[in-house]
Amino acid sequence: MEMKQYIEKNEKRFLDELFQELRIPSVSSNPAHKQDMYRCAEKIVELLKAAGVDTAEVCETAGHPVVFAEKKFDPKAQTILVYGHYDVQPEEPLELWKTKPYEPVVKDGAIWGRGANDDKGQHFMHIKVFEYLIREKKLRHNIKFMIEGEEEIGSPSLAAWMKANKKKLACDLILISDTTMISEKVPSINTGMRGMQYMEVCVTGPNKDVHSGHYGGAIVNPINALCKMIDTLIDKDGHITIPGFYDDVIELTRAERKMLGRAPFDMEEYKKSLGIDGVAGEKGYTTLERTGIRPCLDVNGIWGGYTGEGSKTIIPSTAHAKISMRLVPNQSADKIAKLFTKYFLSIAPKGVKVTVKNIHGGGCFGLPMSSPAFKAASRAIGEVYGIEPVPSRGGGSITVIADAQKILKAAPVLMGFGLERDLIHSPNESYLLSQFRKGMESIALFYKYL
Amino acid sequence: MEMKQYIEKNEKRFLDELFQELRIPSVSSNPAHKQDMYRCAEKIVELLKAAGVDTAEVCETAGHPVVFAEKKFDPKAQTILVYGHYDVQPEEPLELWKTKPYEPVVKDGAIWGRGANDDKGQHFMHIKVFEYLIREKKLRHNIKFMIEGEEEIGSPSLAAWMKANKKKLACDLILISDTTMISEKVPSINTGMRGMQYMEVCVTGPNKDVHSGHYGGAIVNPINALCKMIDTLIDKDGHITIPGFYDDVIELTRAERKMLGRAPFDMEEYKKSLGIDGVAGEKGYTTLERTGIRPCLDVNGIWGGYTGEGSKTIIPSTAHAKISMRLVPNQSADKIAKLFTKYFLSIAPKGVKVTVKNIHGGGCFGLPMSSPAFKAASRAIGEVYGIEPVPSRGGGSITVIADAQKILKAAPVLMGFGLERDLIHSPNESYLLSQFRKGMESIALFYKYL
Repeated sequence: MEMKQYIEKNEKRFLDELFQELRIPSVSSNPAHKQDMYRCAEKIVELLKAAGVDTAEVCETAGHPVVFAEKKFDPKAQTILVYGHYDVQPEEPLELWKTKPYEPVVKDGAIWGRGANDDKGQHFMHIKVFEYLIREKKLRHNIKFMIEGEEEIGSPSLAAWMKANKKKLACDLILISDTTMISEKVPSINTGMRGMQYMEVCVTGPNKDVHSGHYGGAIVNPINALCKMIDTLIDKDGHITIPGFYDDVIELTRAERKMLGRAPFDMEEYKKSLGIDGVAGEKGYTTLERTGIRPCLDVNGIWGGYTGEGSKTIIPSTAHAKISMRLVPNQSADKIAKLFTKYFLSIAPKGVKVTVKNIHGGGCFGLPMSSPAFKAASRAIGEVYGIEPVPSRGGGSITVIADAQKILKAAPVLMGFGLERDLIHSPNESYLLSQFRKGMESIALFYKYL
Repeated sequence: MEMKQYIEKNEKRFLDELFQELRIPSVSSNPAHKQDMYRCAEKIVELLKAAGVDTAEVCETAGHPVVFAEKKFDPKAQTILVYGHYDVQPEEPLELWKTKPYEPVVKDGAIWGRGANDDKGQHFMHIKVFEYLIREKKLRHNIKFMIEGEEEIGSPSLAAWMKANKKKLACDLILISDTTMISEKVPSINTGMRGMQYMEVCVTGPNKDVHSGHYGGAIVNPINALCKMIDTLIDKDGHITIPGFYDDVIELTRAERKMLGRAPFDMEEYKKSLGIDGVAGEKGYTTLERTGIRPCLDVNGIWGGYTGEGSKTIIPSTAHAKISMRLVPNQSADKIAKLFTKYFLSIAPKGVKVTVKNIHGGGCFGLPMSSPAFKAASRAIGEVYGIEPVPSRGGGSITVIADAQKILKAAPVLMGFGLERDLIHSPNESYLLSQFRKGMESIALFYKYL
């Protein structure tokens, strides 16, 4: 039986089981729900066991527990670690919900309720595909599950837990359904997110604020110096000037860029939504490429001197800025922090002292389009949707996936089936049944083509 | 009789009279002293009348009164308007005074008390020199006195009063003793102060703060844009790049610069006092020239984006800066505001909107070293001190003098006899008797050589 038929035959039961999970208000940010977190984790263990894993357990972490499960197939086969999370966003504001957040229903072709998509509905698909592979005797890989309970609060405990359980979690791929695709008509696969390195700089001139009349023109003004230094960081073509900055950036092939370029993009709509009359960025790249496959540098905050009403005629002692760089897969945040620091100190003019602080960094991950995993995912989704999916790149960062890739040294495969319309994190979260079904079909085919 | 002898003969009486003025706590910033302001103004009228003016009166303004007095000599002779102020700084903190602030005494060769120098002691010298000219029949000019009561609070009412009394105040020169000289061994004449034009700019990018991951690298970041625009305002030689900015700057002659260069200046001491390891500024000028005779541009404040602890990954909607330009005599603040605005808007990149606000401007004044008034002052001081005085230029602004020069179209002659050691505005204000005497001698000779 193909997955399509298996779904048709079992969908009622699938929804019953999913709804059991959806009814548990596993809000990770609210300590009042501590017991619900355990209840939800245990429910998932139950579902996994019923689906056919060898072992499934609720594992303690420094925070909410992680569900770990495993099905061994063949030591020589590839091992896939399915990542998901069972915690959800708070349901507030309650009055805006048209249905009750924890009383899931099917209506208008969608599942409604908190977690219907994010991420209960999405990780549940993996449990059911796994069940299908077992029952239909189609399993060809070793499968592990890691379903955490702290994603919505930034996964504070997971990295440490993964480090402590590296062996247990050893895998070749990390398979994740926790993101969106562009649309049902334009299916897409997220092939990477940018990482980040966040710095804070301080430029000190005179040892106190001084009178801008008495000293203006004769000493280095730390604000002017900071502005010049910041301006120096990016050249007229939008390239970052820090020596070595691009050394580890993997240039995409023409073919890969062409594939990414298939994502729909309306420049007029883009500018209109931001209220801007023009875009700018690195020469030679499109807007989507600039946020997807290229690193960048932005000042996130700047301050110094007098910022109140009217005027104060000072040259301030100090000027400050928060400067972050978005990084692309294969760039090391640590290395970039060092390169930035060295360069920023080197461009300080005489007459000021400069300090640079590393605030935090990390978060790059990526799946090469040339990898068998990408090809399998692309083929699977293409077959289900009847159109080749667009590889997409996110501009932001998902730290937990970056951490997992780094700690487990396994490539992440992001097969997300959510849609913008699903309103995750908002009242009236939903998940289209059509996506729920196509998602399961796609995942089943992914295993087939892997 | 020369002034020197006249002083010797009358000094006891001079000090008695000055002390009557010093005993009045004419603190302009404290409403509790409102009546003291009138008492002090009337005391000065009394002193002026006794000295021999034709008329002397307490004139109402929007704030504290101004004393105006006049002695007509000859319609064809030059008219000198003596400016001074009878208001003083508050005496607090009282516990730090070694004598009582309003019980003046002579001790260790100095007059001690609030206002001993600033500006009661200094304007009093002019009354006594005038008395000498009358009694010794040496008067050769028309003399007017304008002694205001609001200098210590920024002269809020004087400009309007001067505008309303232009005819009454008509004069050729404004003679002022309200500043310092470098030292008794290095007497100096202040030949000008810089003016100022203060602007506030705002750069707006996206219509809201946006996620720096999603948009970083693809849209113009208003902070980065502001930094670039600020950096563009000054070139690598320290020249301001605003077209037309230097058009009205009067270049000093080599001889004038040489004279200014005689002012003592210790670069190591300068750097040490500011805690800096280098100075910078416009190429081709010394540090004293950079603050004295050259205009400059400084950012006085900058702000935008996230400025709290840690990190926030935004591209802010707006970035702001306060930017002021110090101007030299003959530059028009209004014109500079227009040039700045035009240029700053012109260098805005596509993708941001820029607004420029004129906060305020004004304040340039200067006395050409080639003028007869400067020459007379220089000769007078040179004769009394036995060494040619150094012409000096102040980097800051004295708005009231700039206003007076502008409204009355008369050149200001700043013969200041204060010294750094006099601690004006602080506890234990004093005025050296030697400076008091040399001041009167110098002023008398100034009239002689004018």
